[in-house]
Amino acid sequence: MTFITKLNAAWRSNDSLLCVGLDPDLPRLPEHLRRQPDGIVAFCKAIIDATADLACAFKPQIAYFAALGAERQLEKVCAWLRARHPHIPLILDAKRGDIGATAHQYAREAFERYGADAVTVSPYMGFDSVEPYMEWEDRGVIVLCRTSNAGGSDLQFLDAGGRPLYQHVAQLVADKWNRNGQCALVVGATFPDELAQVRSIVGDMPLLVPGIGAQGGDIGATVAAGRTADGAGMMINSSRAIIYAEPQDDEDFAAAARRVARATRDEINRYRG
Amino acid sequence: MTFITKLNAAWRSNDSLLCVGLDPDLPRLPEHLRRQPDGIVAFCKAIIDATADLACAFKPQIAYFAALGAERQLEKVCAWLRARHPHIPLILDAKRGDIGATAHQYAREAFERYGADAVTVSPYMGFDSVEPYMEWEDRGVIVLCRTSNAGGSDLQFLDAGGRPLYQHVAQLVADKWNRNGQCALVVGATFPDELAQVRSIVGDMPLLVPGIGAQGGDIGATVAAGRTADGAGMMINSSRAIIYAEPQDDEDFAAAARRVARATRDEINRYRG
Repeated sequence: MTFITKLNAAWRSNDSLLCVGLDPDLPRLPEHLRRQPDGIVAFCKAIIDATADLACAFKPQIAYFAALGAERQLEKVCAWLRARHPHIPLILDAKRGDIGATAHQYAREAFERYGADAVTVSPYMGFDSVEPYMEWEDRGVIVLCRTSNAGGSDLQFLDAGGRPLYQHVAQLVADKWNRNGQCALVVGATFPDELAQVRSIVGDMPLLVPGIGAQGGDIGATVAAGRTADGAGMMINSSRAIIYAEPQDDEDFAAAARRVARATRDEINRYRG
Repeated sequence: MTFITKLNAAWRSNDSLLCVGLDPDLPRLPEHLRRQPDGIVAFCKAIIDATADLACAFKPQIAYFAALGAERQLEKVCAWLRARHPHIPLILDAKRGDIGATAHQYAREAFERYGADAVTVSPYMGFDSVEPYMEWEDRGVIVLCRTSNAGGSDLQFLDAGGRPLYQHVAQLVADKWNRNGQCALVVGATFPDELAQVRSIVGDMPLLVPGIGAQGGDIGATVAAGRTADGAGMMINSSRAIIYAEPQDDEDFAAAARRVARATRDEINRYRG
Protein backbone atom coordinates (compact mmCIF):
# COMPACT_ATOMS: atom_id res chain seq x y z
CA MET A 1 0.00 0.00 0.00
CA THR A 2 1.40 3.41 -0.91
CA PHE A 3 1.64 6.35 1.47
CA ILE A 4 -1.12 8.20 -0.39
CA THR A 5 -3.46 5.17 -0.31
CA LYS A 6 -2.77 4.64 3.38
CA LEU A 7 -3.37 8.31 4.12
CA ASN A 8 -6.68 8.29 2.26
CA ALA A 9 -7.77 5.23 4.20
CA ALA A 10 -6.79 6.81 7.55
CA TRP A 11 -8.69 10.02 6.70
CA ARG A 12 -11.79 7.91 6.20
CA SER A 13 -11.44 5.26 8.91
CA ASN A 14 -10.64 7.74 11.70
CA ASP A 15 -12.75 10.55 10.22
CA SER A 16 -9.75 12.75 10.94
CA LEU A 17 -7.37 15.21 9.31
CA LEU A 18 -5.32 15.49 12.50
CA CYS A 19 -1.61 14.65 12.40
CA VAL A 20 -0.12 14.18 15.87
CA GLY A 21 3.43 15.52 16.03
CA LEU A 22 5.84 13.72 18.35
CA ASP A 23 8.40 16.27 19.60
CA PRO A 24 9.59 14.68 22.85
CA ASP A 25 11.46 17.46 24.65
CA LEU A 26 12.96 15.77 27.71
CA PRO A 27 12.41 18.60 30.23
CA ARG A 28 8.71 18.64 29.37
CA LEU A 29 8.10 14.93 29.88
CA PRO A 30 6.38 13.68 33.06
CA GLU A 31 9.03 13.49 35.75
CA HIS A 32 8.93 9.71 36.20
CA LEU A 33 9.65 9.26 32.48
CA ARG A 34 12.49 11.76 32.39
CA ARG A 35 14.68 9.57 34.56
CA GLN A 36 13.67 6.23 33.07
CA PRO A 37 15.80 4.49 30.42
CA ASP A 38 13.74 4.55 27.23
CA GLY A 39 11.47 7.13 28.89
CA ILE A 40 10.95 8.82 25.53
CA VAL A 41 9.77 5.52 24.07
CA ALA A 42 7.31 5.04 26.92
CA PHE A 43 6.06 8.62 26.48
CA CYS A 44 5.58 8.32 22.72
CA LYS A 45 3.98 4.86 22.92
CA ALA A 46 1.44 6.15 25.43
CA ILE A 47 0.62 9.18 23.26
CA ILE A 48 0.35 7.00 20.14
CA ASP A 49 -1.93 4.42 21.76
CA ALA A 50 -4.14 7.14 23.28
CA THR A 51 -4.65 8.99 19.99
CA ALA A 52 -4.30 6.40 17.20
CA ASP A 53 -8.06 6.27 16.54
CA LEU A 54 -8.19 10.07 16.29
CA ALA A 55 -5.26 10.72 13.95
CA CYS A 56 -4.64 10.43 10.21
CA ALA A 57 -0.87 10.34 10.77
CA PHE A 58 1.92 10.54 13.34
CA LYS A 59 4.93 12.73 12.75
CA PRO A 60 8.01 12.21 14.93
CA GLN A 61 10.49 15.10 14.70
CA ILE A 62 13.92 13.52 14.49
CA ALA A 63 15.76 16.56 15.92
CA TYR A 64 14.44 15.88 19.42
CA PHE A 65 15.88 12.38 19.32
CA ALA A 66 19.13 13.38 17.62
CA ALA A 67 19.93 16.07 20.20
CA LEU A 68 19.88 13.39 22.89
CA GLY A 69 21.64 10.63 20.97
CA ALA A 70 18.35 8.75 21.17
CA GLU A 71 18.03 7.37 17.65
CA ARG A 72 17.56 3.88 19.08
CA GLN A 73 14.52 5.19 20.96
CA LEU A 74 13.15 6.66 17.73
CA GLU A 75 13.59 3.25 16.08
CA LYS A 76 11.54 1.72 18.88
CA VAL A 77 8.80 4.35 18.63
CA CYS A 78 8.54 3.79 14.87
CA ALA A 79 8.52 0.01 15.28
CA TRP A 80 5.73 0.30 17.85
CA LEU A 81 3.61 2.46 15.59
CA ARG A 82 4.09 0.16 12.60
CA ALA A 83 3.29 -2.96 14.64
CA ARG A 84 0.35 -1.69 16.68
CA HIS A 85 -1.25 0.79 14.30
CA PRO A 86 -0.15 -0.28 10.83
CA HIS A 87 -2.98 1.59 9.13
CA ILE A 88 -1.78 5.00 10.41
CA PRO A 89 0.93 6.61 8.26
CA LEU A 90 4.27 7.40 9.88
CA ILE A 91 5.84 10.65 8.68
CA LEU A 92 9.46 11.25 9.62
CA ASP A 93 9.97 15.00 9.97
CA ALA A 94 13.59 15.44 8.97
CA LYS A 95 13.58 18.17 6.29
CA ARG A 96 16.71 16.77 4.68
CA GLY A 97 18.12 18.15 1.46
CA ASP A 98 21.34 17.05 -0.19
CA ILE A 99 22.87 15.87 -3.47
CA GLY A 100 21.90 12.56 -5.03
CA ALA A 101 24.32 10.10 -3.43
CA THR A 102 23.80 11.64 0.00
CA ALA A 103 20.03 11.95 -0.47
CA HIS A 104 20.02 8.22 -1.14
CA GLN A 105 21.59 7.66 2.29
CA TYR A 106 18.96 9.89 3.92
CA ALA A 107 16.23 7.94 2.13
CA ARG A 108 17.66 4.72 3.54
CA GLU A 109 17.62 6.32 6.99
CA ALA A 110 13.96 7.36 6.72
CA PHE A 111 12.45 4.45 4.82
CA GLU A 112 14.56 1.44 5.81
CA ARG A 113 15.95 2.23 9.23
CA TYR A 114 12.83 3.95 10.62
CA GLY A 115 10.31 2.40 8.24
CA ALA A 116 8.62 5.76 7.62
CA ASP A 117 5.78 5.96 5.11
CA ALA A 118 6.83 9.48 4.18
CA VAL A 119 9.57 11.99 4.93
CA THR A 120 9.79 15.78 4.79
CA VAL A 121 12.45 17.27 2.50
CA SER A 122 13.73 20.72 1.55
CA PRO A 123 13.44 21.86 -2.09
CA TYR A 124 16.42 24.26 -2.06
CA MET A 125 18.81 21.89 -3.85
CA GLY A 126 16.32 20.98 -6.56
CA PHE A 127 14.83 17.87 -8.10
CA ASP A 128 17.93 15.70 -8.13
CA SER A 129 18.06 16.08 -4.33
CA VAL A 130 14.46 14.81 -4.04
CA GLU A 131 14.41 12.15 -6.76
CA PRO A 132 16.44 9.51 -4.83
CA TYR A 133 13.61 9.19 -2.28
CA MET A 134 11.26 8.17 -5.09
CA GLU A 135 13.09 4.91 -5.67
CA TRP A 136 10.97 3.73 -2.74
CA GLU A 137 7.83 3.81 -4.86
CA ASP A 138 5.36 3.15 -2.05
CA ARG A 139 6.64 6.01 0.11
CA GLY A 140 5.77 9.68 0.23
CA VAL A 141 7.97 12.74 -0.20
CA ILE A 142 6.65 15.86 1.52
CA VAL A 143 8.37 18.97 0.15
CA LEU A 144 8.67 22.21 2.14
CA CYS A 145 6.70 24.92 0.34
CA ARG A 146 5.41 27.68 2.67
CA THR A 147 6.50 27.23 6.26
CA SER A 148 4.64 28.51 9.32
CA ASN A 149 7.49 30.47 10.94
CA ALA A 150 7.93 34.24 10.64
CA GLY A 151 11.28 33.84 8.85
CA GLY A 152 9.62 31.67 6.23
CA SER A 153 8.99 34.86 4.25
CA ASP A 154 12.72 35.64 3.94
CA LEU A 155 13.03 33.40 0.88
CA GLN A 156 9.60 31.89 0.26
CA PHE A 157 7.92 35.24 -0.32
CA LEU A 158 10.54 36.58 -2.71
CA ASP A 159 9.20 37.43 -6.13
CA ALA A 160 10.34 34.64 -8.44
CA GLY A 161 9.33 35.37 -11.99
CA GLY A 162 6.11 37.21 -11.13
CA ARG A 163 4.95 35.22 -8.12
CA PRO A 164 6.26 34.28 -4.71
CA LEU A 165 8.86 31.54 -4.55
CA TYR A 166 6.59 29.22 -2.54
CA GLN A 167 4.04 29.26 -5.38
CA HIS A 168 6.79 28.47 -7.84
CA VAL A 169 7.77 25.49 -5.66
CA ALA A 170 4.16 24.31 -5.54
CA GLN A 171 3.91 24.52 -9.35
CA LEU A 172 7.23 22.76 -9.83
CA VAL A 173 6.23 19.89 -7.56
CA ALA A 174 2.76 19.59 -9.12
CA ASP A 175 3.97 19.74 -12.74
CA LYS A 176 7.30 17.93 -12.61
CA TRP A 177 8.42 16.41 -9.33
CA ASN A 178 5.19 14.51 -8.65
CA ARG A 179 5.38 12.29 -11.72
CA ASN A 180 4.92 9.14 -9.65
CA GLY A 181 2.18 10.61 -7.46
CA GLN A 182 4.37 10.36 -4.35
CA CYS A 183 4.53 14.05 -3.39
CA ALA A 184 2.85 16.20 -0.79
CA LEU A 185 3.69 19.73 0.38
CA VAL A 186 4.27 21.45 3.72
CA VAL A 187 2.17 24.64 3.90
CA GLY A 188 1.77 26.44 7.22
CA ALA A 189 -1.59 27.26 8.79
CA THR A 190 -0.43 30.73 9.76
CA PHE A 191 -1.18 32.04 6.26
CA PRO A 192 -4.62 30.76 5.13
CA ASP A 193 -4.65 32.91 1.96
CA GLU A 194 -1.40 31.36 0.87
CA LEU A 195 -2.68 27.90 1.72
CA ALA A 196 -5.62 28.59 -0.62
CA GLN A 197 -3.21 29.69 -3.35
CA VAL A 198 -1.26 26.48 -3.01
CA ARG A 199 -4.44 24.39 -3.06
CA SER A 200 -5.48 26.06 -6.30
CA ILE A 201 -2.11 25.20 -7.85
CA VAL A 202 -1.74 21.57 -6.78
CA GLY A 203 -5.23 20.09 -7.17
CA ASP A 204 -5.80 17.23 -4.77
CA MET A 205 -2.20 16.84 -3.61
CA PRO A 206 -2.06 16.22 0.16
CA LEU A 207 -0.83 19.11 2.29
CA LEU A 208 0.94 18.74 5.62
CA VAL A 209 -0.15 21.80 7.59
CA PRO A 210 1.74 22.78 10.74
CA GLY A 211 0.97 25.93 12.70
CA ILE A 212 -2.28 25.31 14.57
CA GLY A 213 -2.19 24.64 18.31
CA ALA A 214 0.85 26.17 20.03
CA GLN A 215 1.72 28.18 16.89
CA GLY A 216 -1.67 29.88 16.84
CA GLY A 217 -3.07 29.23 13.35
CA ASP A 218 -6.89 29.47 13.02
CA ILE A 219 -8.46 26.05 12.42
CA GLY A 220 -11.59 27.25 10.62
CA ALA A 221 -9.65 29.44 8.20
CA THR A 222 -7.10 26.69 7.67
CA VAL A 223 -9.63 24.02 6.78
CA ALA A 224 -11.60 26.36 4.52
CA ALA A 225 -8.46 27.34 2.66
CA GLY A 226 -6.82 23.95 2.34
CA ARG A 227 -9.47 21.26 2.01
CA THR A 228 -10.13 19.42 -1.19
CA ALA A 229 -13.60 19.11 -2.73
CA ASP A 230 -14.26 15.96 -0.68
CA GLY A 231 -13.35 17.72 2.58
CA ALA A 232 -9.99 16.05 3.04
CA GLY A 233 -6.55 16.65 1.47
CA MET A 234 -4.80 17.81 4.62
CA MET A 235 -2.72 16.48 7.49
CA ILE A 236 -3.20 19.26 10.02
CA ASN A 237 -0.40 18.90 12.51
CA SER A 238 -0.46 19.67 16.20
CA SER A 239 2.46 18.65 18.38
CA ARG A 240 3.00 20.50 21.66
CA ALA A 241 -0.67 21.38 22.31
CA ILE A 242 -1.50 17.68 22.29
CA ILE A 243 1.51 15.87 23.71
CA TYR A 244 2.02 18.37 26.53
CA ALA A 245 -1.70 18.91 27.24
CA GLU A 246 -2.25 19.86 30.89
CA PRO A 247 -3.98 16.98 32.75
CA GLN A 248 -7.35 17.81 34.30
CA ASP A 249 -8.65 16.20 37.51
CA ASP A 250 -7.16 12.71 37.71
CA GLU A 251 -6.11 12.40 34.07
CA ASP A 252 -2.64 11.16 33.21
CA PHE A 253 -0.66 12.80 30.37
CA ALA A 254 -1.94 10.33 27.77
CA ALA A 255 -5.58 10.89 28.68
CA ALA A 256 -4.99 14.64 28.50
CA ALA A 257 -3.42 14.22 25.08
CA ARG A 258 -6.41 12.15 23.97
CA ARG A 259 -8.86 14.79 25.19
CA VAL A 260 -7.10 17.60 23.29
CA ALA A 261 -6.58 15.43 20.20
CA ARG A 262 -10.28 14.57 20.13
CA ALA A 263 -11.30 18.21 20.56
CA THR A 264 -8.89 19.26 17.81
CA ARG A 265 -10.07 16.56 15.42
CA ASP A 266 -13.69 17.48 16.11
CA GLU A 267 -13.06 21.19 15.65
CA ILE A 268 -11.34 20.47 12.33
CA ASN A 269 -14.30 18.31 11.30
CA ARG A 270 -16.79 21.09 11.98
CA TYR A 271 -15.23 23.04 9.10
CA ARG A 272 -14.77 20.21 6.60
CA GLY A 273 -18.21 20.70 5.03
CA MET B 1 38.72 30.16 19.75
CA THR B 2 35.97 30.74 17.20
CA PHE B 3 35.43 28.68 14.07
CA ILE B 4 36.58 31.56 11.86
CA THR B 5 39.76 32.10 13.91
CA LYS B 6 40.52 28.39 13.90
CA LEU B 7 39.93 28.19 10.15
CA ASN B 8 42.25 31.13 9.50
CA ALA B 9 44.93 29.48 11.62
CA ALA B 10 44.54 26.16 9.79
CA TRP B 11 44.77 27.85 6.39
CA ARG B 12 48.12 29.29 7.49
CA SER B 13 49.63 26.46 9.51
CA ASN B 14 48.92 23.76 6.90
CA ASP B 15 49.26 26.12 3.93
CA SER B 16 46.07 24.53 2.68
CA LEU B 17 42.58 25.36 1.47
CA LEU B 18 41.68 21.67 1.22
CA CYS B 19 38.70 20.36 3.18
CA VAL B 20 38.65 16.55 3.40
CA GLY B 21 35.11 15.21 3.25
CA LEU B 22 34.37 12.04 5.21
CA ASP B 23 31.60 10.13 3.37
CA PRO B 24 32.16 6.56 4.58
CA ASP B 25 30.07 4.43 2.23
CA LEU B 26 30.35 0.92 3.66
CA PRO B 27 30.58 -1.02 0.36
CA ARG B 28 33.55 1.15 -0.67
CA LEU B 29 35.58 0.61 2.50
CA PRO B 30 38.53 -1.80 2.48
CA GLU B 31 37.15 -5.27 2.96
CA HIS B 32 38.75 -5.95 6.35
CA LEU B 33 37.09 -2.80 7.72
CA ARG B 34 33.65 -3.54 6.31
CA ARG B 35 33.20 -6.53 8.59
CA GLN B 36 34.85 -5.02 11.68
CA PRO B 37 32.78 -3.48 14.49
CA ASP B 38 33.58 0.23 14.42
CA GLY B 39 35.13 -0.30 10.99
CA ILE B 40 33.93 3.15 9.93
CA VAL B 41 35.71 4.67 12.91
CA ALA B 42 38.93 2.89 12.02
CA PHE B 43 38.60 4.04 8.39
CA CYS B 44 37.95 7.68 9.27
CA LYS B 45 40.66 7.81 11.94
CA ALA B 46 43.21 6.50 9.43
CA ILE B 47 42.14 9.05 6.80
CA ILE B 48 42.21 11.87 9.36
CA ASP B 49 45.64 11.00 10.70
CA ALA B 50 47.05 10.59 7.19
CA THR B 51 45.81 13.98 5.97
CA ALA B 52 45.56 16.26 9.02
CA ASP B 53 48.71 18.22 8.10
CA LEU B 54 47.37 18.79 4.58
CA ALA B 55 43.81 19.95 5.37
CA CYS B 56 42.21 23.17 6.58
CA ALA B 57 39.08 21.28 7.75
CA PHE B 58 37.41 17.88 7.92
CA LYS B 59 33.77 17.48 6.95
CA PRO B 60 31.94 14.31 7.96
CA GLN B 61 28.64 13.84 6.09
CA ILE B 62 26.14 12.66 8.69
CA ALA B 63 23.85 10.89 6.16
CA TYR B 64 26.38 8.09 5.69
CA PHE B 65 26.36 7.38 9.40
CA ALA B 66 22.59 7.84 9.83
CA ALA B 67 21.72 5.36 7.07
CA LEU B 68 23.61 2.68 9.00
CA GLY B 69 22.48 3.62 12.49
CA ALA B 70 26.11 4.48 13.16
CA GLU B 71 25.77 7.76 15.07
CA ARG B 72 27.90 6.34 17.86
CA GLN B 73 30.68 5.80 15.32
CA LEU B 74 30.33 9.42 14.17
CA GLU B 75 30.68 10.53 17.80
CA LYS B 76 33.92 8.56 18.03
CA VAL B 77 35.28 9.99 14.77
CA CYS B 78 34.52 13.53 15.96
CA ALA B 79 36.04 12.87 19.39
CA TRP B 80 39.20 11.52 17.72
CA LEU B 81 39.56 14.56 15.50
CA ARG B 82 39.05 16.98 18.37
CA ALA B 83 41.52 15.16 20.62
CA ARG B 84 44.27 14.42 18.10
CA HIS B 85 44.02 17.39 15.78
CA PRO B 86 42.35 20.13 17.81
CA HIS B 87 43.64 22.90 15.52
CA ILE B 88 41.72 21.54 12.49
CA PRO B 89 38.07 22.68 12.25
CA LEU B 90 35.38 20.01 12.26
CA ILE B 91 32.45 20.79 9.96
CA LEU B 92 29.36 18.63 10.37
CA ASP B 93 27.66 18.40 6.98
CA ALA B 94 23.99 18.05 7.93
CA LYS B 95 22.16 20.76 5.90
CA ARG B 96 19.43 21.01 8.53
CA GLY B 97 16.67 23.60 8.31
CA ASP B 98 13.71 23.85 10.68
CA ILE B 99 11.79 26.27 12.90
CA GLY B 100 13.35 27.81 16.00
CA ALA B 101 12.65 25.24 18.71
CA THR B 102 13.62 22.37 16.41
CA ALA B 103 16.65 24.20 15.05
CA HIS B 104 17.82 24.55 18.65
CA GLN B 105 17.73 20.74 18.96
CA TYR B 106 19.72 20.35 15.75
CA ALA B 107 22.26 22.87 17.06
CA ARG B 108 22.64 20.79 20.21
CA GLU B 109 23.15 17.73 18.03
CA ALA B 110 25.89 19.39 15.96
CA PHE B 111 27.70 21.46 18.57
CA GLU B 112 27.26 19.56 21.82
CA ARG B 113 26.83 15.93 20.85
CA TYR B 114 29.36 15.91 18.01
CA GLY B 115 31.39 18.93 19.12
CA ALA B 116 31.45 20.38 15.60
CA ASP B 117 33.09 23.75 15.02
CA ALA B 118 30.59 24.50 12.27
CA VAL B 119 27.50 23.00 10.66
CA THR B 120 25.90 23.34 7.22
CA VAL B 121 22.29 24.61 7.14
CA SER B 122 19.61 25.29 4.53
CA PRO B 123 18.31 28.86 4.12
CA TYR B 124 14.83 27.92 2.82
CA MET B 125 13.02 28.53 6.12
CA GLY B 126 14.70 31.89 6.73
CA PHE B 127 16.65 33.63 9.45
CA ASP B 128 14.72 32.35 12.46
CA SER B 129 15.65 28.82 11.37
CA VAL B 130 19.36 29.76 11.36
CA GLU B 131 19.54 32.10 14.35
CA PRO B 132 19.32 29.38 17.05
CA TYR B 133 22.71 28.02 15.96
CA MET B 134 24.27 31.40 16.72
CA GLU B 135 23.66 31.04 20.44
CA TRP B 136 26.87 29.00 20.29
CA GLU B 137 28.95 32.11 19.64
CA ASP B 138 32.22 30.36 18.94
CA ARG B 139 30.75 28.10 16.25
CA GLY B 140 30.21 28.60 12.54
CA VAL B 141 27.02 28.41 10.48
CA ILE B 142 27.58 27.53 6.83
CA VAL B 143 24.52 28.42 4.75
CA LEU B 144 23.70 26.71 1.44
CA CYS B 145 23.88 29.29 -1.34
CA ARG B 146 24.75 27.80 -4.76
CA THR B 147 25.08 24.04 -4.73
CA SER B 148 27.19 21.98 -7.11
CA ASN B 149 24.49 19.58 -8.36
CA ALA B 150 22.62 19.99 -11.66
CA GLY B 151 19.27 20.41 -9.88
CA GLY B 152 20.70 23.28 -7.86
CA SER B 153 19.47 25.57 -10.63
CA ASP B 154 15.82 24.57 -10.11
CA LEU B 155 15.41 27.13 -7.33
CA GLN B 156 18.77 28.83 -6.88
CA PHE B 157 18.85 30.22 -10.40
CA LEU B 158 15.31 31.61 -10.35
CA ASP B 159 15.09 35.34 -10.87
CA ALA B 160 14.37 36.83 -7.45
CA GLY B 161 13.91 40.56 -7.72
CA GLY B 162 16.29 41.08 -10.63
CA ARG B 163 18.98 38.56 -9.75
CA PRO B 164 19.27 34.84 -9.15
CA LEU B 165 18.03 33.55 -5.82
CA TYR B 166 21.49 32.33 -4.78
CA GLN B 167 22.82 35.91 -5.05
CA HIS B 168 19.92 37.12 -2.96
CA VAL B 169 20.82 34.52 -0.32
CA ALA B 170 24.46 35.63 -0.40
CA GLN B 171 23.41 39.26 0.09
CA LEU B 172 20.99 38.37 2.87
CA VAL B 173 23.63 36.41 4.76
CA ALA B 174 26.28 39.11 4.28
CA ASP B 175 24.02 42.03 5.23
CA LYS B 176 21.80 40.56 7.93
CA TRP B 177 22.42 36.99 9.04
CA ASN B 178 26.17 37.41 9.63
CA ARG B 179 25.83 40.01 12.38
CA ASN B 180 28.06 38.02 14.76
CA GLY B 181 30.59 37.10 12.08
CA GLN B 182 29.73 33.39 12.37
CA CYS B 183 28.55 32.72 8.82
CA ALA B 184 30.06 31.09 5.78
CA LEU B 185 28.42 29.96 2.52
CA VAL B 186 28.32 26.79 0.44
CA VAL B 187 29.07 27.62 -3.21
CA GLY B 188 29.81 24.83 -5.68
CA ALA B 189 32.95 24.64 -7.79
CA THR B 190 30.98 23.59 -10.85
CA PHE B 191 30.04 27.21 -11.62
CA PRO B 192 33.17 29.42 -11.30
CA ASP B 193 31.43 32.52 -12.66
CA GLU B 194 28.79 32.24 -9.97
CA LEU B 195 31.44 31.65 -7.33
CA ALA B 196 33.03 34.94 -8.43
CA GLN B 197 29.64 36.68 -8.15
CA VAL B 198 29.22 35.42 -4.60
CA ARG B 199 32.75 36.46 -3.66
CA SER B 200 32.03 39.98 -4.91
CA ILE B 201 28.90 40.12 -2.72
CA VAL B 202 30.25 38.71 0.55
CA GLY B 203 33.71 40.25 0.89
CA ASP B 204 36.04 38.01 2.88
CA MET B 205 33.37 35.59 4.16
CA PRO B 206 34.66 32.00 4.02
CA LEU B 207 33.19 29.78 1.29
CA LEU B 208 32.84 26.02 1.53
CA VAL B 209 33.30 24.83 -2.04
CA PRO B 210 32.28 21.28 -2.99
CA GLY B 211 32.43 20.00 -6.53
CA ILE B 212 36.09 19.37 -7.36
CA GLY B 213 37.42 15.82 -7.46
CA ALA B 214 34.74 13.25 -8.27
CA GLN B 215 32.27 16.00 -9.26
CA GLY B 216 34.63 17.41 -11.89
CA GLY B 217 34.98 21.12 -11.00
CA ASP B 218 38.13 22.82 -12.36
CA ILE B 219 40.56 23.69 -9.57
CA GLY B 220 42.30 26.61 -11.29
CA ALA B 221 39.05 28.30 -12.24
CA THR B 222 37.63 27.66 -8.78
CA VAL B 223 40.55 29.21 -6.92
CA ALA B 224 40.72 32.19 -9.27
CA ALA B 225 37.00 32.85 -8.82
CA GLY B 226 36.69 32.30 -5.08
CA ARG B 227 39.91 33.36 -3.35
CA THR B 228 40.15 36.44 -1.21
CA ALA B 229 42.83 39.10 -1.72
CA ASP B 230 45.20 37.21 0.57
CA GLY B 231 44.79 33.99 -1.42
CA ALA B 232 42.57 32.19 1.11
CA GLY B 233 38.86 32.45 1.98
CA MET B 234 37.90 28.96 0.79
CA MET B 235 37.46 25.46 2.13
CA ILE B 236 37.68 23.49 -1.12
CA ASN B 237 36.13 20.13 -0.40
CA SER B 238 37.06 16.78 -1.87
CA SER B 239 35.55 13.61 -0.44
CA ARG B 240 35.45 10.53 -2.64
CA ALA B 241 38.54 11.33 -4.76
CA ILE B 242 40.61 11.36 -1.56
CA ILE B 243 39.09 8.81 0.78
CA TYR B 244 38.62 6.19 -1.94
CA ALA B 245 41.90 6.93 -3.75
CA GLU B 246 43.19 3.82 -5.54
CA PRO B 247 46.33 2.53 -3.78
CA GLN B 248 49.48 2.37 -5.92
CA ASP B 249 52.22 -0.23 -5.49
CA ASP B 250 52.22 -1.25 -1.82
CA GLU B 251 50.27 1.72 -0.46
CA ASP B 252 47.41 1.16 1.96
CA PHE B 253 44.19 3.19 1.61
CA ALA B 254 45.38 5.88 4.01
CA ALA B 255 48.66 6.39 2.19
CA ALA B 256 46.72 6.63 -1.08
CA ALA B 257 44.42 9.21 0.50
CA ARG B 258 47.45 11.18 1.69
CA ARG B 259 49.02 11.13 -1.77
CA VAL B 260 45.87 12.47 -3.45
CA ALA B 261 45.22 14.98 -0.66
CA ARG B 262 48.76 16.34 -1.00
CA ALA B 263 48.47 16.56 -4.80
CA THR B 264 45.11 18.32 -4.47
CA ARG B 265 46.36 20.78 -1.86
CA ASP B 266 49.44 21.51 -3.98
CA GLU B 267 47.39 22.01 -7.13
CA ILE B 268 45.09 24.41 -5.27
CA ASN B 269 48.14 26.29 -3.99
CA ARG B 270 49.52 26.76 -7.50
CA TYR B 271 46.56 29.03 -8.25
CA ARG B 272 46.39 30.97 -4.97
CA GLY B 273 48.76 33.67 -6.20
